[in-house]
Amino acid sequence: MSSENRKVYAEVANLVRERRPLVHCITNYVTVNDCANAVLAVGGSPVMADDAREIADIVAIASSLVINIGTLNARTVKSMRLAGKAAAKIGKPVILDPVGAGASALRTKTAIALVREIPFAVIRGNSSEIATLLAGSGNTRGVDAADDGSPSKSGEKNALIARELSRKTGAVVVVTGAIDTIADGSRIFKISNGHPMMARITGSGCMLTAVLGAYCGACHTDRAIAAAAAVSIMGIAGERAARAAESVGLGTFRTRLIDELSRIDGDGAKEDMRIETA
Amino acid sequence: MSSENRKVYAEVANLVRERRPLVHCITNYVTVNDCANAVLAVGGSPVMADDAREIADIVAIASSLVINIGTLNARTVKSMRLAGKAAAKIGKPVILDPVGAGASALRTKTAIALVREIPFAVIRGNSSEIATLLAGSGNTRGVDAADDGSPSKSGEKNALIARELSRKTGAVVVVTGAIDTIADGSRIFKISNGHPMMARITGSGCMLTAVLGAYCGACHTDRAIAAAAAVSIMGIAGERAARAAESVGLGTFRTRLIDELSRIDGDGAKEDMRIETA
Amino acid sequence: MSSENRKVYAEVANLVRERRPLVHCITNYVTVNDCANAVLAVGGSPVMADDAREIADIVAIASSLVINIGTLNARTVKSMRLAGKAAAKIGKPVILDPVGAGASALRTKTAIALVREIPFAVIRGNSSEIATLLAGSGNTRGVDAADDGSPSKSGEKNALIARELSRKTGAVVVVTGAIDTIADGSRIFKISNGHPMMARITGSGCMLTAVLGAYCGACHTDRAIAAAAAVSIMGIAGERAARAAESVGLGTFRTRLIDELSRIDGDGAKEDMRIETA
Repeated sequence: MSSENRKVYAEVANLVRERRPLVHCITNYVTVNDCANAVLAVGGSPVMADDAREIADIVAIASSLVINIGTLNARTVKSMRLAGKAAAKIGKPVILDPVGAGASALRTKTAIALVREIPFAVIRGNSSEIATLLAGSGNTRGVDAADDGSPSKSGEKNALIARELSRKTGAVVVVTGAIDTIADGSRIFKISNGHPMMARITGSGCMLTAVLGAYCGACHTDRAIAAAAAVSIMGIAGERAARAAESVGLGTFRTRLIDELSRIDGDGAKEDMRIETA
Repeated sequence: MSSENRKVYAEVANLVRERRPLVHCITNYVTVNDCANAVLAVGGSPVMADDAREIADIVAIASSLVINIGTLNARTVKSMRLAGKAAAKIGKPVILDPVGAGASALRTKTAIALVREIPFAVIRGNSSEIATLLAGSGNTRGVDAADDGSPSKSGEKNALIARELSRKTGAVVVVTGAIDTIADGSRIFKISNGHPMMARITGSGCMLTAVLGAYCGACHTDRAIAAAAAVSIMGIAGERAARAAESVGLGTFRTRLIDELSRIDGDGAKEDMRIETA
Repeated sequence: MSSENRKVYAEVANLVRERRPLVHCITNYVTVNDCANAVLAVGGSPVMADDAREIADIVAIASSLVINIGTLNARTVKSMRLAGKAAAKIGKPVILDPVGAGASALRTKTAIALVREIPFAVIRGNSSEIATLLAGSGNTRGVDAADDGSPSKSGEKNALIARELSRKTGAVVVVTGAIDTIADGSRIFKISNGHPMMARITGSGCMLTAVLGAYCGACHTDRAIAAAAAVSIMGIAGERAARAAESVGLGTFRTRLIDELSRIDGDGAKEDMRIETA
């Protein structure tokens, strides 16, 4: 990774602190506080609003919209659809976290319907959620065949499904895992920042999605670059939090993750970024 | 600030720990956990209940009611109105946090309707939220004119809108900012406790409103004094938390804020209180 | 307590980490994040899902179901009933936390209706909540008479109501307090782990109920033993967290409670377990 490239990602992170994007989140009630604090920590400003009657007003003032289906219900799904269409219509980036797609028919159907109706800027999920979204378009076989559980095959599979979903939807697709994969129509990014402790607390994924909202809300030039910067910065915060908390426990890790997110800036993170492009 | 006055505020803080007021909160799902822990930390006991069918029962056993419209929806707004009227009818203090009034028509209309229907004991918001409530009564011009963005003008403006809203509603009005302003019908209090880190986490404002619920639930003699004590104590906790967390980050700051709230008592806080009356 | 017995409880705790039970929670929005992190900390995996349309799917993949009525409303109560019946029908353990039963008619009626309709594996509440459930079956007199407020009488009362409710419902009944009491049809367990700081934060009770879901989801052989292990482990985590946080405050205590839960295993906890059977 060239120092030229590092500079590009670092500038995105700095831009977020300069522009303080207002991130509208319609998200689950489990990790909503973590999401709000993560957005604030990276320099954005969160607004949580899910009543259909105020969607238009909030979309109008926000820099981006984050839709997270973690604890979806009929009322909030209606608001998600309204908000997603309204935001996309006026050119605001919309980010989707299809939490649990594949775990229930309701989540699968809702996530697929959202993807059909809304031109997402970014979709972020784990391998299984992204594969489920793709299967909704009738494409599971190749995906399943590519995965024999080994890290390299799993990496290949993630690149395959990310690229495929990106081509079908036009969104930048982020598949998180041991190594995070990002695809847009033409490029693949592999990011090897992060720490296993992140998967042992609730909210790491949701927080990343909220942070993607802040990064895309601040940086409109290249969304895949913005997404790669967000994923790398979140991973670096996780690495640093783990160094402080590994011998203490998961409660301290959660607290230190927000600490590190709030201290990090592009310049301080540059040397730790591990982003490869293909 | 005379030592006599400090003693009065300190006694309010001690009273909360003695009387353990039960604070009924109908509040947003973003910071509800912080609110519950803040109430417990200052010596109260929180109860969160928002179903219309149990409002009457909970109002009957609670010492005070806190209404926070941070993530309002049709169902919870109905409960807020029911609860507010029921509590006021039997003389329980009702506290309003008009989160985001001005950001959407729904929030503005809801906050104004609540203020018209319910005789609030205390209304707490930032300058923009309080100005919005006042504009609802057709009074924006003077307010906007008074604000040229300078700290002293902003202080003047906050005193003006606090006093005006207090006169119209009969409530004690708290306008939080770099300096916090409290007005009742005849007095103005200026409180210069607090720390900028408080604005960089979610929930500082909501927690203060919940703590106001505890203070007003324990102390009925002079609500402006109770409010001033609550605002000062919250600010001192913020100052102390910042000393411990400034070089660590926002996650630790949030944790230490609850720590300091839980350790503070009137006597230990007395010397740090910065409350001026006019 | 014999070392033989300690080994049995320790094995339950280790089993949870081995089997990683998926714990489906329909719970309140106040402490839901704490519950998710507590389940993860002890080795389980949480899934929060409360929309009636996905209940059947989530119940089918989960190892256990936790129903907590802390912020009940008409929509979620419907889901609780659906989920409870569906889970019980296919032999999944269902755990009830009747938060606030006795504080409002809605909570009392809902809790009693749930107990009538669903064959719970475990019911956990404080003395007042369990007494309320029992009174629903027309049995308050003896219970009230037994309680003169002294610790030993309160211990007797808790054993009495736990055993009585267990006999009526077939559930293992956990009454938490200074000393925790567990009863099934034939045995009484008294557990004297824990620390008073646990009652001074929100969520200790809810987290224990969620952890009971993880323990019962991993260990089907003897639910009273599984419950005793969970109660003891939670209490030990509280003791250890208090040692680290007593001089700091309640925010740090909350963080350290999750830390200790995440570090504890059966072997490391064995010597600290204080479980008596009668």
